[in-house]
Amino acid sequence: SEFRVAILTVSDTVAAGLGPDRSGPRAVSVVNSSSERLGGTSVVATAVVPDDEQKIKNMLQMWSDVDKVDLILTLGGTGCTPRDVTPEATKSMIQKETPGLLYVMMRESLKVTPSAMLSRAAAGIRGSTLIINMPGNPNAVAECMEALLPALKHALKQVRGDKREKHPRHV
Amino acid sequence: SEFRVAILTVSDTVAAGLGPDRSGPRAVSVVNSSSERLGGTSVVATAVVPDDEQKIKNMLQMWSDVDKVDLILTLGGTGCTPRDVTPEATKSMIQKETPGLLYVMMRESLKVTPSAMLSRAAAGIRGSTLIINMPGNPNAVAECMEALLPALKHALKQVRGDKREKHPRHV
Amino acid sequence: SEFRVAILTVSDTVAAGLGPDRSGPRAVSVVNSSSERLGGTSVVATAVVPDDEQKIKNMLQMWSDVDKVDLILTLGGTGCTPRDVTPEATKSMIQKETPGLLYVMMRESLKVTPSAMLSRAAAGIRGSTLIINMPGNPNAVAECMEALLPALKHALKQVRGDKREKHPRHV
Ligand code: NA
Repeated sequence: SEFRVAILTVSDTVAAGLGPDRSGPRAVSVVNSSSERLGGTSVVATAVVPDDEQKIKNMLQMWSDVDKVDLILTLGGTGCTPRDVTPEATKSMIQKETPGLLYVMMRESLKVTPSAMLSRAAAGIRGSTLIINMPGNPNAVAECMEALLPALKHALKQVRGDKREKHPRHV
Repeated sequence: SEFRVAILTVSDTVAAGLGPDRSGPRAVSVVNSSSERLGGTSVVATAVVPDDEQKIKNMLQMWSDVDKVDLILTLGGTGCTPRDVTPEATKSMIQKETPGLLYVMMRESLKVTPSAMLSRAAAGIRGSTLIINMPGNPNAVAECMEALLPALKHALKQVRGDKREKHPRHV
Repeated sequence: SEFRVAILTVSDTVAAGLGPDRSGPRAVSVVNSSSERLGGTSVVATAVVPDDEQKIKNMLQMWSDVDKVDLILTLGGTGCTPRDVTPEATKSMIQKETPGLLYVMMRESLKVTPSAMLSRAAAGIRGSTLIINMPGNPNAVAECMEALLPALKHALKQVRGDKREKHPRHV
């Protein structure tokens, strides 16, 4: 019953070998330290792709359709520059949107900095996989996870189809 | 000038006769007790359908296109389990989204429980009918209605095309 | 490095010459008085169109694709009446959504009046142009701008593709 997590760093710079991946390792650490509150997690895959819509989509598809991980976190590519396409790649792959997760991430991120309003993060479900866009900033990953933790375990159980999670209050 | 309301319970369990409909009667009661603040309401139809996208769509279409009710409240099927498809059915039927109604329902629901972030509720307008997804939990219906009440009467008048409601502040 | 701004008043009444455009001049004034905090702005175009989806789309396309302005503010047509189609016109023209801008405008507008929840405002990016729907109410324009100001300069720099704005925290 452990949740399998995959983490995708989206960055032209990192993918080209022009800089270290600071977000990916930080996200792995955040997931590991949240494991108990999530009912057990293991990071089963990490990867780096450039800010290329098709390459992002390919990874999301493989991890959800083939590897059937429970949770994919993407890191970066959610801003407003011409190269930021992670939300578009994500929205084209999800079958169901999860706007409430975006709401709490936005609300909590805005408490840290007003530039959080520039995030265009998307989130949703593909098959039995929950996909969540997070910012590229390493600290922001921890803050977004903190916002989700009060209900993320429930979300993951629901997405997996656990019958006992079928009727929580408010859903 | 009374607003006509229809209430759709979406639940495999209730539709199969395997459990009582607790949400539907509660929603009728909530609408009736809100009638004065809404400028007069009458619940003209209630129904139960399973978590089946096509069956949900059929009811939304009949109530909006044929019966031309002013407001449809759906109850349930907004979570993250594989069977939860009420938002998808709703989004395929609405012609205009009403994100502000979702915002206030989410904000108020999160004050009650963090699992409100799992709600994927949609809302919008089809013809002269306002359609709003609410949670299946009977208590949550009252909380969502409370969040909407400060402006729901204005919304219903606008959707109906009442000229005097055309230019409220902030719209 | 000054940002070029265009302002579109959407109103059947004003377009028909049946009433003065109170929103447009007010928005010009709001942009001008925000110029310093935005890193310099000049309003290069204003226009009035009726609540007609195609006419709104034509103006958005010309100003973004031909005139390549940095920012388009639309005023009005975001409510729930049958004539309100500004969000639909906008959503059909943008290539990327900017939900965080909508979040802060909704949050701040609700502090002024609950009827802000009736706003169906959309916002997003087309090419190198940021397009934001604002309410028709003249006072509301100032309130929405106030909500955006803490990060709007960053947003405009990102949309323009300024490399130095590529990695702000939380995006
Ligand atoms: Na909020």
